[in-house]
Amino acid sequence: MESVCVDWRVLQKFTSEVFEKLGMAPEDAALEAEVLVWANLSGIDSHGVLRIPWYVELVERALMNPKPNIRILRETPSVLMVEGDRAFGPVVTVFAMDKVITKAKKTGIGWAVLRNITHQGALGYYTLMATRRNAVGIAIVCSPPNMAPFGARAPGVHNSPISIAAPAKQHPPLVLDMATSIAAGGKIRLARDKGSPIPQGWALDKNGEPTTDPNLASILLPFGGPKGSGLAMMFECLTGIMAGNPLQEPILSGKKKQREHNQNGVVAAIDIGTFTDLEIYRQTVDGYIEGVKSLPRTEGFSEILVPGELERITYEKRLKNGIPLPRGTVENLKETARKLNVALPEWLRDN
Amino acid sequence: MESVCVDWRVLQKFTSEVFEKLGMAPEDAALEAEVLVWANLSGIDSHGVLRIPWYVELVERALMNPKPNIRILRETPSVLMVEGDRAFGPVVTVFAMDKVITKAKKTGIGWAVLRNITHQGALGYYTLMATRRNAVGIAIVCSPPNMAPFGARAPGVHNSPISIAAPAKQHPPLVLDMATSIAAGGKIRLARDKGSPIPQGWALDKNGEPTTDPNLASILLPFGGPKGSGLAMMFECLTGIMAGNPLQEPILSGKKKQREHNQNGVVAAIDIGTFTDLEIYRQTVDGYIEGVKSLPRTEGFSEILVPGELERITYEKRLKNGIPLPRGTVENLKETARKLNVALPEWLRDN
Repeated sequence: MESVCVDWRVLQKFTSEVFEKLGMAPEDAALEAEVLVWANLSGIDSHGVLRIPWYVELVERALMNPKPNIRILRETPSVLMVEGDRAFGPVVTVFAMDKVITKAKKTGIGWAVLRNITHQGALGYYTLMATRRNAVGIAIVCSPPNMAPFGARAPGVHNSPISIAAPAKQHPPLVLDMATSIAAGGKIRLARDKGSPIPQGWALDKNGEPTTDPNLASILLPFGGPKGSGLAMMFECLTGIMAGNPLQEPILSGKKKQREHNQNGVVAAIDIGTFTDLEIYRQTVDGYIEGVKSLPRTEGFSEILVPGELERITYEKRLKNGIPLPRGTVENLKETARKLNVALPEWLRDN
Repeated sequence: MESVCVDWRVLQKFTSEVFEKLGMAPEDAALEAEVLVWANLSGIDSHGVLRIPWYVELVERALMNPKPNIRILRETPSVLMVEGDRAFGPVVTVFAMDKVITKAKKTGIGWAVLRNITHQGALGYYTLMATRRNAVGIAIVCSPPNMAPFGARAPGVHNSPISIAAPAKQHPPLVLDMATSIAAGGKIRLARDKGSPIPQGWALDKNGEPTTDPNLASILLPFGGPKGSGLAMMFECLTGIMAGNPLQEPILSGKKKQREHNQNGVVAAIDIGTFTDLEIYRQTVDGYIEGVKSLPRTEGFSEILVPGELERITYEKRLKNGIPLPRGTVENLKETARKLNVALPEWLRDN
């Protein structure tokens, strides 16, 4: 059997139990599970439950903190800087996104620098929070180097993703969520779990040679050459260096020998009503979506998709029909459940 | 003779005279000339003086306004919205960038939406303003559709560029300035002036067919497929739709028949000192630059360049040796000078 199909509620309950066993507060565990399963529902499997075994390992190595002391270090009416104390990404990011939306309602914009956090999952979850409160959401995140800068054959930047989301009226919100690499690192993990090769041009092996074997893939490549590479460098200037917790420079300069998981990010919200009429804004986004979708198509395209549309279609489908998990992911989750003494749910027992 | 080499001061004086003849206030004409010649000095010839004849045409068609009534429509301690009254881009953008830097010094961030402006030239000029006052600068701009969304064979988005700049200490600032198309539209204008073909994959002709002839190139293509296309859509949501002056939707929906030049933009500044120690920030950017540059190189690369570095090298060189202008550009400028009764300077008389 190639994959197992699981109901999202069942998967979310299991995921939440795993994180409670790791020592997280029940509400934090529930939030973490919601963000991961949201990614799976949306078809962003690379940022879904396949990350669980890695998170467990990071908690064991004290690189992810299930009981963080999250603090606001700096604050003005429009900005804040949050010390994440290595919190699970969703826990600190939802907290900060909520704050910046509230600030945006007062001053037009809220901008938070998140310091010393860990894996956030799919950024679209957070920027969509802003759209529900009639703001445009922005999120950027950086981790230690995993991508070769344009012209290099060794890691020097992170394939930092950016997400931007804007609300429509009749249509679901537009939500872009893209890495600065040709392919997100999670897509390579997924290829490993599926046992399938990756396309040429996605990655280099640890010696800087091109590879199509996901097990040898070690260094990601930027999209658009200097464009993806340049955006990634600038994102580190907006996140890690701004947070006083740089993640590239200490590795590159040799101050830090070991690359270990850590993240810094930005979440921001821009309040639409501060600038323009909200209803007209939302209607115009509707018209924009409809206009783009009705353009004449290039050969081979049966439909023109706008940012977030494919994920939304998958979301609706999987909400009804369940989430397909590849065999490799199921095996890894079973092992994790046993290790943590989480009772094996039926779908894990029988598969 | 393939090109003419002109001293930057001579070129800037001529350019300023052209704009004064168009009715601009002397200080506005000088600023416009400075921004254009800065682009030429930096090697961004696509955004330099080759644009002058087009600007003259736009003024004649009342699409660019040499005597604008620039007004602030909305303002909070952190944001503002500026009505540009079809001002020349640099005039309104320098005004707004100055404001957002001042706001950033008080609240950590300043974010301006620029409404109803015209061509800004190279965005790096503005984001570098922020670095000189110890802030990170961001600029985004959108015009009417000139790029095919991913999967389409007709224009539906603009190849909106983004610039981000951050200050270093010993090194020049990092400054990224990139379009969301594979190649900036100005690069195609430059190929026209040079009489050289463009690479396959840059553009489609007006019927949506691929072309390498810069004279037939009519529709740009996004970089990274859905990535460039998606960024462009989201940038319109942050600029035109936010400004209540959408530039894509009215064309796509047929509300507006004619695509005519207009722009909306965002400029923003994030004050470094609000978040972290400024000296450490600048030193870390230095270390980051040095670290990236000293990575092992891919075959065929003699050097790894960081964002803005190539432009800076060209700037230093052209400051000393002059700016080479292709024959086509010189002819066009000569014609413009005659039309506007600007005394032909020696370099235009003799070439």
